[in-house]
Amino acid sequence: MAGNDGAQLGVGMVGYSFMGAAHSQAWRTAPRFFDLPLDPRMRVLGGRNPEALAAAAQRLGWESTETSWQALVARDDVDLVDVCTPGDTHAEIAIAALEAGKHVLCEKPLANTVAEAEKMVAVAEAAAARGQVAMVGFTYRRVPAIQLARQLVADGRIGTVRHVRAQYLQDWIADENAPLSWRLDKSKAGSGALGDIGAHVIDLAQFITGERITDVSGLLETFVKERPVATEFAGLSGQGGTERGPVTVDDAAVFLARLSGGGIGTFEATRFAYGRKNAIRLEINGSKGSVAFDFEDMNVLHFFDAADDAAVAGFRRIVVTEPEHAYVAHWWPAGHGLGYEHAFTHQAVDLVEGIAAGTHPAPTFADGLVVQRVLDAVERSAASGGWVQP
Amino acid sequence: MAGNDGAQLGVGMVGYSFMGAAHSQAWRTAPRFFDLPLDPRMRVLGGRNPEALAAAAQRLGWESTETSWQALVARDDVDLVDVCTPGDTHAEIAIAALEAGKHVLCEKPLANTVAEAEKMVAVAEAAAARGQVAMVGFTYRRVPAIQLARQLVADGRIGTVRHVRAQYLQDWIADENAPLSWRLDKSKAGSGALGDIGAHVIDLAQFITGERITDVSGLLETFVKERPVATEFAGLSGQGGTERGPVTVDDAAVFLARLSGGGIGTFEATRFAYGRKNAIRLEINGSKGSVAFDFEDMNVLHFFDAADDAAVAGFRRIVVTEPEHAYVAHWWPAGHGLGYEHAFTHQAVDLVEGIAAGTHPAPTFADGLVVQRVLDAVERSAASGGWVQP
Amino acid sequence: MAGNDGAQLGVGMVGYSFMGAAHSQAWRTAPRFFDLPLDPRMRVLGGRNPEALAAAAQRLGWESTETSWQALVARDDVDLVDVCTPGDTHAEIAIAALEAGKHVLCEKPLANTVAEAEKMVAVAEAAAARGQVAMVGFTYRRVPAIQLARQLVADGRIGTVRHVRAQYLQDWIADENAPLSWRLDKSKAGSGALGDIGAHVIDLAQFITGERITDVSGLLETFVKERPVATEFAGLSGQGGTERGPVTVDDAAVFLARLSGGGIGTFEATRFAYGRKNAIRLEINGSKGSVAFDFEDMNVLHFFDAADDAAVAGFRRIVVTEPEHAYVAHWWPAGHGLGYEHAFTHQAVDLVEGIAAGTHPAPTFADGLVVQRVLDAVERSAASGGWVQP
Amino acid sequence: MAGNDGAQLGVGMVGYSFMGAAHSQAWRTAPRFFDLPLDPRMRVLGGRNPEALAAAAQRLGWESTETSWQALVARDDVDLVDVCTPGDTHAEIAIAALEAGKHVLCEKPLANTVAEAEKMVAVAEAAAARGQVAMVGFTYRRVPAIQLARQLVADGRIGTVRHVRAQYLQDWIADENAPLSWRLDKSKAGSGALGDIGAHVIDLAQFITGERITDVSGLLETFVKERPVATEFAGLSGQGGTERGPVTVDDAAVFLARLSGGGIGTFEATRFAYGRKNAIRLEINGSKGSVAFDFEDMNVLHFFDAADDAAVAGFRRIVVTEPEHAYVAHWWPAGHGLGYEHAFTHQAVDLVEGIAAGTHPAPTFADGLVVQRVLDAVERSAASGGWVQP
Repeated sequence: MAGNDGAQLGVGMVGYSFMGAAHSQAWRTAPRFFDLPLDPRMRVLGGRNPEALAAAAQRLGWESTETSWQALVARDDVDLVDVCTPGDTHAEIAIAALEAGKHVLCEKPLANTVAEAEKMVAVAEAAAARGQVAMVGFTYRRVPAIQLARQLVADGRIGTVRHVRAQYLQDWIADENAPLSWRLDKSKAGSGALGDIGAHVIDLAQFITGERITDVSGLLETFVKERPVATEFAGLSGQGGTERGPVTVDDAAVFLARLSGGGIGTFEATRFAYGRKNAIRLEINGSKGSVAFDFEDMNVLHFFDAADDAAVAGFRRIVVTEPEHAYVAHWWPAGHGLGYEHAFTHQAVDLVEGIAAGTHPAPTFADGLVVQRVLDAVERSAASGGWVQP
Repeated sequence: MAGNDGAQLGVGMVGYSFMGAAHSQAWRTAPRFFDLPLDPRMRVLGGRNPEALAAAAQRLGWESTETSWQALVARDDVDLVDVCTPGDTHAEIAIAALEAGKHVLCEKPLANTVAEAEKMVAVAEAAAARGQVAMVGFTYRRVPAIQLARQLVADGRIGTVRHVRAQYLQDWIADENAPLSWRLDKSKAGSGALGDIGAHVIDLAQFITGERITDVSGLLETFVKERPVATEFAGLSGQGGTERGPVTVDDAAVFLARLSGGGIGTFEATRFAYGRKNAIRLEINGSKGSVAFDFEDMNVLHFFDAADDAAVAGFRRIVVTEPEHAYVAHWWPAGHGLGYEHAFTHQAVDLVEGIAAGTHPAPTFADGLVVQRVLDAVERSAASGGWVQP
Repeated sequence: MAGNDGAQLGVGMVGYSFMGAAHSQAWRTAPRFFDLPLDPRMRVLGGRNPEALAAAAQRLGWESTETSWQALVARDDVDLVDVCTPGDTHAEIAIAALEAGKHVLCEKPLANTVAEAEKMVAVAEAAAARGQVAMVGFTYRRVPAIQLARQLVADGRIGTVRHVRAQYLQDWIADENAPLSWRLDKSKAGSGALGDIGAHVIDLAQFITGERITDVSGLLETFVKERPVATEFAGLSGQGGTERGPVTVDDAAVFLARLSGGGIGTFEATRFAYGRKNAIRLEINGSKGSVAFDFEDMNVLHFFDAADDAAVAGFRRIVVTEPEHAYVAHWWPAGHGLGYEHAFTHQAVDLVEGIAAGTHPAPTFADGLVVQRVLDAVERSAASGGWVQP
Repeated sequence: MAGNDGAQLGVGMVGYSFMGAAHSQAWRTAPRFFDLPLDPRMRVLGGRNPEALAAAAQRLGWESTETSWQALVARDDVDLVDVCTPGDTHAEIAIAALEAGKHVLCEKPLANTVAEAEKMVAVAEAAAARGQVAMVGFTYRRVPAIQLARQLVADGRIGTVRHVRAQYLQDWIADENAPLSWRLDKSKAGSGALGDIGAHVIDLAQFITGERITDVSGLLETFVKERPVATEFAGLSGQGGTERGPVTVDDAAVFLARLSGGGIGTFEATRFAYGRKNAIRLEINGSKGSVAFDFEDMNVLHFFDAADDAAVAGFRRIVVTEPEHAYVAHWWPAGHGLGYEHAFTHQAVDLVEGIAAGTHPAPTFADGLVVQRVLDAVERSAASGGWVQP
């Protein structure tokens, strides 16, 4: 790896499913396209099932394995613990890692409850005083088009924010016979669409605007109350494929919001929007212009500048692949778009640079807690039927 | 006019501003492209200022004028009264016309209050018993793409409705120095974005789904509390252009909703979405598919059919200009799109046919009242901070 | 009609099919939305079949009929002859009308041969010296978005033209069993896709760039050589629906071009592009920017300004419905889009204003001849296989 | 690496610029997401400048370096030579590698002349008889949306091909002060837009249709004849930044084509289309439907099926990220789009699988020659002004 003095950063990752694969690709790719001050080494992968773990480590390219996360956290050759497990284990692992003196990258949402998240923040702040970095994986912040949106808002190009229109639309369980998974189990996932995908648009809305959500009024709905038990679970019960189990989380979440700067917002997260595969949509209207984004066209940002002459004003379809755009100069020529996993590489880059520089790159655990409190407020509002403050 | 036995329908219209021009074009155009059972005659235009009225009548093509709407309503040669005035006068004129035995077409929203609307419905129902027709001008129902959306839902092509996502976005007062107009004056307009444009998407959502909004939780916001008094008013006050007056209606309205079939919705109406000129957007996700519409591309409907093979499923961009589509065969060949005012012509056609057939074409005053109750519920909810039933 | 001293312009129109309906709507509508210096009166409709003609006159709103175009041209109450017949009769009627002292509006293409067109131009120039106006119906020039494109190029906003990419894509005979019509008969239509729709994009490309096509290399193709004889023809032959007749025109035409300013172009006209209904697409790239248009979204122009900062440069999606845009202030508020036939109204407006002012509004017959020569050059090139000058 | 018996495939790559970076990422990534039968090892990187080479090898992750490509080709630990140099060296290196018994992957265009390409094919065929694989890098074939287009055509879903509309639009030298580079030097690059980017759309058009281009009529243009000499060259001349040198290749290439199945095509390649960054656009219309693709939205294919009911027919916007789509199941869940370099990984996967299976995955050198002959025919046609057969 070019550009550093050879200092290494030993990484231990817990979990090797969807997020584990994305993080692995990021750790492997980051030093190939960016000059990093530390060389990340994929030291150890953690998981419970030894055989699956070994296969994953070989496939994903990790040097060794640990079937106990405690052992992984304790290893001397691990400088950073990357937590890619379901939300119910985030707090325990991240806190232990921080207390063991490790840097931590923790997948979102930060935790399954505000109380857990608050504990994590407290531990992270103590660790920060010792020079440790703790980051939460709101990865979409690092899509170049999102960075550009943030920049335009920060530069005052759209003026005072009046409207936020935020949607995260998927359709992967729109079919009522789609099977149960841990993501539909409240004890594992904490919440459903709200925490899994709604958390992303809550974070993005606050990140791009630089504001806080101060009040929410929400509604949660579970359209399909029971689903077939997936084969792996069915096998355990010995009852075959006709068994159905309860869905204990929300299928969809919608809420209204007030923002700290006086604007208002509508938010929606659902896995029931047939035809929308991963449509993270954000439109922000301000007193001087607007920005709009849809992850289905992730290399593009739409920008309306009210200062343009009326005859030629229009949403500009900016292909965010110019060297002027964040991260892009490290990749390909203009027009050669990036994909989903590139944002994970950017996350790894910023994290490694933060560790080397002794800074605390956002989103910190405190930022994660802010989102957690909004999620919690939406749930409280949905229960009470009124407006609630996060 | 071809295709009828020469029987005429005398039309008297009150108001000659934006809506008056659109209705005039509809009355003139309808018999040229459709075989109508009655020949509409543009008999008389009503308004208060004699000079402006005369000029408007000449420009818009009306045979005569009346400076008193009461006189217009009383004329023997008027069979139908077309009410294109601000909302505060709808009830009085429409009721008088119905009581005088005339058919009535009344612009939306039906009235400025539920009480007025209820009175109008009662009078309309009594008139219906006497064979009179009363229709409210939710014109966008008659855009061919909206008709197709309704048809697909009615045919079960998207299954059970789970999500409605409805927005009406404009930007005409996003500039905080845009002047006051009667549309920003509660005493004239009743409400702001909510009633003026929100009413349209409320009606469209209910029309397309065939369902009712049963519960709402809303928020109204006035971003710009004072605005320059427009020249015409300023002249009256004698104080010139620096005077500012209060905005007494909402600039934007957002609300969550529950639908009678178990689905949920998000609704938004605003005049502060810079870059969105007349973006009436509706997306409806069901258990078998989705439909999506944006008036900025008004000749197109997007339809996702979950029954399509996964490898070739995708939102179909249907150019709704085929002979198979509602109204289209009367106009141009495929691909030669219609514009804003064509829906007014379709409205005139359906109204004339209803009158001749003795049926009561929707949207009736009762349909208008349903919308009025939702508008009222949103206002009550915004005031109370909780969920409210229309 | 407001704004004129009552002077009238008597219009006689020959032909009452698709184009006749569009022109009728224009004559009727123009004085309602624009202050015209002369009041157009729909005096007389010409056609051969008395019954069909009478029905059309009633439906389209013409005061009287003539079954002989010669009689129509000779009438004293006709000031302007509007020629909406197939191309093989344009020259004869237009020349007679001009020689009878009438103004003429002639549908495109101007004629079926260059020789005819040249004669028409000569007669029109002599008539012009007598104060008569002759215009050819390249109506799409008067779509507001096209006007904006022309304005941007004329203002130097895209610099020197380097590329023209012009397509007119339809699919109405993509089905090989679509029946024969006069448009597929060389003796009536002169050519196929080339003259019928290719003529439009040739004219638009030259209009927007302000340049001439100086060299072409083309290819014509007839994919389906025989088609079912349509019922109306079949009836004449007495042989029923299984008869097939020859297609004697091109199904598709493609050609390369050099432009007078040094740029190059690709042109395509086809009726075999399944899914494209009336896709008139123009993209022009210059040394400072680009414009792009697609009639399937006719109220929009896309404009890329290379002077914009690289980080925020992008094609602007300009919704061409602002008061600043050509013709628009006479219609509806921003975002309330126009449809196909509005350009015909704009054509009528400009023609009437030209007549009143004694100017010669483009496109003149000479402009029509320029297009005719390009069409002819493409045919000669397709025959010879080499480059040809128009 | 999982799933193979540990057999390795030693890779030596010559060149480490843009293409070298893309190929390196592919070699590193392929075994992490796909179960490969052989484990590719990044053994050696070749280049002339020792310092730049060493830095590149470290950055891109190659185990060793060779400053002589002859030495690289001769190495025992190299099983496959990956040629990422400018086109003037392809023939020499690839032939030497094949003669040394290596498999070869060669960047496109295969060579700078037909004669070179023919020699390469002859050598490759001899090598094939010995079990060696030779592939040319028309990478875009392996974008999933392109694979789907090919599949739909092969399955007869669009019927007989009638139209191909192929464009490759960039704007990186639209600014006439953009500096000279080797890509603008005929002795290095062979041709300009034609060979560099036109080659891609020629290959894609033939790949998707499964047909050959049989006749072409073309035009080449160099809009900007002289450009500033880039700093690196200027330094050599000692004359600083004001020096200008000649552009010896085409800036843009356009041509018409006939296809072996009776269809016709228009092709365009340019680097002067302001606002188009890497717009590889293909639309193919057949007798039963159409497909359309634009690399600016690379995870999407548009498909029109004429068999759909007319009322609901429309181009389907297929988000090509379903498990049913080629390669996709190895990456992320639906909607999590791929980027530019993923197609290089797919290319590496198919190449490794071909080597292990003893098959000869397309595009072979013979496929590359087919494209070369079309490029040559376009140049001959542009010179002669007539139609030419490849």
